Amino acid sequence: MKIASGVEWAAHACALLAMLPKGASLSAEALANYHDVPPAYMAKQMQALRRAGLIVSQRGAVGGYRLATTPNDINLWDITEAIEGSAPSFKCTEIRQNGPCGATKENCKKPCGIAASFYAAEQAFRSELKKVLLSDLLMQIARDTKPDDVETLRQWLNENAALTPS
Amino acid sequence: MKIASGVEWAAHACALLAMLPKGASLSAEALANYHDVPPAYMAKQMQALRRAGLIVSQRGAVGGYRLATTPNDINLWDITEAIEGSAPSFKCTEIRQNGPCGATKENCKKPCGIAASFYAAEQAFRSELKKVLLSDLLMQIARDTKPDDVETLRQWLNENAALTPS
Repeated sequence: MKIASGVEWAAHACALLAMLPKGASLSAEALANYHDVPPAYMAKQMQALRRAGLIVSQRGAVGGYRLATTPNDINLWDITEAIEGSAPSFKCTEIRQNGPCGATKENCKKPCGIAASFYAAEQAFRSELKKVLLSDLLMQIARDTKPDDVETLRQWLNENAALTPS
Repeated sequence: MKIASGVEWAAHACALLAMLPKGASLSAEALANYHDVPPAYMAKQMQALRRAGLIVSQRGAVGGYRLATTPNDINLWDITEAIEGSAPSFKCTEIRQNGPCGATKENCKKPCGIAASFYAAEQAFRSELKKVLLSDLLMQIARDTKPDDVETLRQWLNENAALTPS
């Protein structure tokens, strides 16, 4: 049971996009450079986030990605779902219907206790992630970042963010 | 993010072992036949359950598996952990330490907000499964099984369970 590393990358990338000034965007390449991860794989995560409607892309000379909405409107489950999909982690194959004592399909309209318990656990997992807004993560980053590092980040953003002409 | 199908098999197998009369056991082959799944793969799950101390094996002519303890002392997380291991599903690679603005190792003694949130979600997932005892699953199976099916199961157990000579 593993969460793809792309989820970690996408979450950190969203946190960085959330720090951009209005009208600014970052290319997938810049996001990859910032996190020192392979650009092609970062680009793949950004495309998944875009398909899920969490970020939007701007084409052209000032192209790049920015959040589609405010950091208050994106939670950690949204990001996880964008990358991992929404299929339950427990896939019930209805083995209770198999074999010499298999239950009939008619008697299996409700999930069995085992499947129902995994679905409930999955809901608990998702609920925890839904509670965490991108804005909460930003607050925490702000608290944890030293003043010198804030300055380094500001300079990096100035050099790498593309600004849409207003 | 997928839970291996072996977890489903192991959970159903444990529920069946929980129905055995005292002193009786079932071979991995019988457990595989009961659930109509490949014997080699069922045997693999049973070995994992045995290594985790949830079931014990009896060798010899009356060999087979039985629960190591009562159905009140085994929960669904125990079974999941036996098959999937206890590594967290979110693997933090500390990408916050990477790149041109990477935080120093000293400033990363606590998990970042993203990793901490996934760990909390994982705890919620595990807590839900820990609440579900094998005895709860048995009660639910008893409620859901038609009288004719109970009789079929009783006959199957009579024919397939090995009894240790007392």
